[in-house]
Amino acid sequence: MNAFKEIENKILIFDGAMGTMLQQEGLGAGELPEVYNIEHPEIIQKIHESYIKAGAQIITTNTFQASELKLEHCSYSVEQIIEAAVKIARKAKAPFVALDIGPLGKMMKPLGELSFEEAYQFFKRQVEAGTKAGVDFILLETFSDLYEAKAAILAAKENSNLPIFCTMTFQQDGRTFLGTNPLTAVSVLQGLGVDVLGMNCSLGPEEMISFLPDFLRYAKVPVMVQSNAGLPQMEKGQTLFPVTPKTFGHYAEKMAKLGVQILGGCCGTTPEHIYQIKQRIGNRTPISRKVERMTCACSSNQTVILDDKTTVIGERINPTGKKRLKEALRNHQFDILLKEAIYQVNAGAQILDVNVGLPEIDEKEILPKITCDIQEVVDVPLQIDSADIKALEATVRVYNGKPIINSVNGKEESMKAVFPIAKKYGAALICLTLDENGIPKTAQGRLQIAEKMMKRAIEYGIPKEDLIVDCLVMTASAQQSIVKETLKAVNLVKTKLGVKTTLGISNISFGLPNRELLNQTFLAAALGSGLDAPILDPLSQQMMDTIHSFRVLNNEDREAQKYITTYQTLSKEGEKEKNHSKDI
Amino acid sequence: MNAFKEIENKILIFDGAMGTMLQQEGLGAGELPEVYNIEHPEIIQKIHESYIKAGAQIITTNTFQASELKLEHCSYSVEQIIEAAVKIARKAKAPFVALDIGPLGKMMKPLGELSFEEAYQFFKRQVEAGTKAGVDFILLETFSDLYEAKAAILAAKENSNLPIFCTMTFQQDGRTFLGTNPLTAVSVLQGLGVDVLGMNCSLGPEEMISFLPDFLRYAKVPVMVQSNAGLPQMEKGQTLFPVTPKTFGHYAEKMAKLGVQILGGCCGTTPEHIYQIKQRIGNRTPISRKVERMTCACSSNQTVILDDKTTVIGERINPTGKKRLKEALRNHQFDILLKEAIYQVNAGAQILDVNVGLPEIDEKEILPKITCDIQEVVDVPLQIDSADIKALEATVRVYNGKPIINSVNGKEESMKAVFPIAKKYGAALICLTLDENGIPKTAQGRLQIAEKMMKRAIEYGIPKEDLIVDCLVMTASAQQSIVKETLKAVNLVKTKLGVKTTLGISNISFGLPNRELLNQTFLAAALGSGLDAPILDPLSQQMMDTIHSFRVLNNEDREAQKYITTYQTLSKEGEKEKNHSKDI
Ligand SMILES: [Zn+2]
Ligand SMILES: [Zn+2]
Ligand SMILES: [Zn+2]
Repeated sequence: MNAFKEIENKILIFDGAMGTMLQQEGLGAGELPEVYNIEHPEIIQKIHESYIKAGAQIITTNTFQASELKLEHCSYSVEQIIEAAVKIARKAKAPFVALDIGPLGKMMKPLGELSFEEAYQFFKRQVEAGTKAGVDFILLETFSDLYEAKAAILAAKENSNLPIFCTMTFQQDGRTFLGTNPLTAVSVLQGLGVDVLGMNCSLGPEEMISFLPDFLRYAKVPVMVQSNAGLPQMEKGQTLFPVTPKTFGHYAEKMAKLGVQILGGCCGTTPEHIYQIKQRIGNRTPISRKVERMTCACSSNQTVILDDKTTVIGERINPTGKKRLKEALRNHQFDILLKEAIYQVNAGAQILDVNVGLPEIDEKEILPKITCDIQEVVDVPLQIDSADIKALEATVRVYNGKPIINSVNGKEESMKAVFPIAKKYGAALICLTLDENGIPKTAQGRLQIAEKMMKRAIEYGIPKEDLIVDCLVMTASAQQSIVKETLKAVNLVKTKLGVKTTLGISNISFGLPNRELLNQTFLAAALGSGLDAPILDPLSQQMMDTIHSFRVLNNEDREAQKYITTYQTLSKEGEKEKNHSKDI
Repeated sequence: MNAFKEIENKILIFDGAMGTMLQQEGLGAGELPEVYNIEHPEIIQKIHESYIKAGAQIITTNTFQASELKLEHCSYSVEQIIEAAVKIARKAKAPFVALDIGPLGKMMKPLGELSFEEAYQFFKRQVEAGTKAGVDFILLETFSDLYEAKAAILAAKENSNLPIFCTMTFQQDGRTFLGTNPLTAVSVLQGLGVDVLGMNCSLGPEEMISFLPDFLRYAKVPVMVQSNAGLPQMEKGQTLFPVTPKTFGHYAEKMAKLGVQILGGCCGTTPEHIYQIKQRIGNRTPISRKVERMTCACSSNQTVILDDKTTVIGERINPTGKKRLKEALRNHQFDILLKEAIYQVNAGAQILDVNVGLPEIDEKEILPKITCDIQEVVDVPLQIDSADIKALEATVRVYNGKPIINSVNGKEESMKAVFPIAKKYGAALICLTLDENGIPKTAQGRLQIAEKMMKRAIEYGIPKEDLIVDCLVMTASAQQSIVKETLKAVNLVKTKLGVKTTLGISNISFGLPNRELLNQTFLAAALGSGLDAPILDPLSQQMMDTIHSFRVLNNEDREAQKYITTYQTLSKEGEKEKNHSKDI
């Protein structure tokens, strides 16, 4: 990381397009640019040198497509191409060399055939070759699939110690081709531990600048941008990029002023474009951004932020106490789980808890599979709920996005096992306020455990905002005298520690009649005490009634628009008679 | 008050029976003992002297029945009897002289014919005569009717500046003949501003000692006891009192050790009894009791304490928005209000708000009348709800018990008008957190007004625990953005000021559909935030469902006994099918 340390508080300039330059040098439409590393190294070197001369500090190796998949019909191996590429960059006297890795060019499951593990293996080979050849950084770029980017990042992290730069490419609608927006990209990529993140390709600087706010607001790491030289125009059968070097430099300056720290070019850019960047911002120091910290969970195309609003976590994918679900799990009939997922989302769940814990089930095998299956049918983020550490890690690994882990507790053993997983995969984490001595009777005792866990999590490198504290619902039938301590604890934990809170609502009423009523009253009382994200049954009318009405009270459902739509008709029929009989 | 100041931190000894002594001196069954003041002053003087010699510091004038009513067929006037009585006591060289006033001997309305104002006038005449004759204290004793005691206390307060001692007489079931228990007696009497309170007559010291705990726990003023010499026994046509002077002294010592500060004797006691008291406790200093302060409201036979439990205040006696109630009020058809009172109590209301505010109505006339009528049909304490200060005072004056005044606010004008009424009649008081600048938008602002009102109330001599703060419910349809400030304010006011809180729940949903749902969720959220005494519609199933279930969560309904009884059957029918369809 020495190279990165040297530059991390500086404005950095990348090079520009390789493909565009090679076409000028006569690269044919069917030709693999990477073959030039071996057959025309002097051309590649010349291009590198022109960028260096223009002011580029980081030279990208000519290896964008140097994967086993793309080189299938090529006579050179991944290692040969990459080794040659790095040599050329060094020969050109690049100040820093970044190993370029692009997408594999095949769709991943479930849309395509490529499995997460296969993708990982392809990237791993490139990473190992680049690392062996001695690059300074790894640049993962032009990703439209967050899932593929995750495989690439894990491959880079697990097979080298080099700093990782990762950029995704967005369409004009502000999402990648597979639906990821900047907010989600930032949340997931920085959770996975990249050192620099940002966007590149597809759009020109003018379009990209409008997507910058979420990057600059939420990225804790430096943000990088490599725009194309505008949107390509076809002219006389040739692709032309309309943004001139001067205009390009103008935008670069604008971006740097907003807080972008690393700039370069993508398709259509030339050494002149880079020269303009250098002229405009070469001697600046990066501005210091105010980074906003938030608690969130993501699928690949939805980020649910736990803010002042109420977030509903669906509890129903859990066999505990459910005969039919147990049977289905035993017989590997997973359709029923997928239906549960869809029903819950339709009913208003914003996150789904996924638990398949049964003694007869191999969770390590089943939990990742079901999680991926559920991600196919619903877009909401998932909460991986297991006491089996191996199942947990296997699932978090193949999850597409930023999951919530349910849960870790204050026992040393639990923290030691779960914190590293949360840290590595950037998962949010439900912290149960219990430890070796059990569940403290008092709110103060639970606050103390939450505080201890927070400190230890931070030591593990987990940001505080990734912690969601569960102060633990007691069962009113068995532990009535301390039921209210949970409500007090929610309030204490929120105000003293400034973290978000969750509770499994239904526990409260176990063993008592009219459970829905107790659940409903407890839910509202807990929301009144500051609960952020109840785990509940969204198919319960009473639960969602409480949520809908609390959202009016909590100023979430502005002007009660949704409430009025939901309950207007209902009330026209029912209320009138009621009011009449009561107004005596 | 000089005489009282001199003695207030000392053990004090009263004299014993006058009647018993006079019977020994030959008083006939039909004779009025008070006539002896004029016809046999030497006998009365001798009895006083024997008590003084035995150690009595306070001599009770021989005027127990010296009211206009009792002297109806007597040839001497109230003034003549009292003047003579005081002269004798002085002549006997009594250290202090207490004007004795007993009950009038006629039942008050509604049980009897005597009106509150008539009773007041009778007592007034006695008080004026005694004051003119130069007594040191006024002793109001042997009351079984709290209402009559109130009339006597007001007569004493308004027509003299002398310290007031007041004792009630309890039966073996721990209540007065008209149903008042020690807790209620203490709450109401000390609210009315007596200087000493306690019990006398009817029972011997052994029985009385078991009623002492509530007196000693809650009385902020000195507690006094004048027991009979045991329960009377008939022997050969004569009434005998079995407790010997020695045993009597033993109990006196026991009571003093518990915290009773003023002791004497009632029926059957003699100078020997008083001598034993003197021997046992004459040189003690009073022990310092730990007085518990509580927020409460009382009828004559129910005290509702606002403690950690949830107290339901019924809102339905209020014409606002109720056509039929308005019409009934306009036509002086009050039956409908009485029905509302009964319905609400049957539904679980523990206190009823009484509001008859209509432009066409003379509240000063109607509110006291309706309040008394309602007190006839239900036993719960009432909350007098009016913006008309004169109506408020007239009603609080004739109310039987300790009412709640609804309300005072932080405007100087309101505090100036309402605080003196609350102070004089010992009413609890709802404080609205608004002032000349309106309702503060923030919880902090409302806390500040509550704090200001608390300070000013204390300046007026109102104990802090008589204040119940209403942080004001905003209407979600009109002021959605600050609805949650009310919940925060409840929490702040409770924790920072340590006072109880109330809220008018139904306001929240005005102008929105499905009001019951919003009310219900808001109620539970407010209870979760620490609300003590919601004002609500107890005939709403949803409201009482919320209350019943919250009482389980709040550890009030121990082991959910009431909850289970209420909802068991319901759930057997309804839940099964529901659970079945949901457990997929
Ligand atoms: Zn490009
Ligand atoms: Zn007596
Ligand atoms: Zn007596």
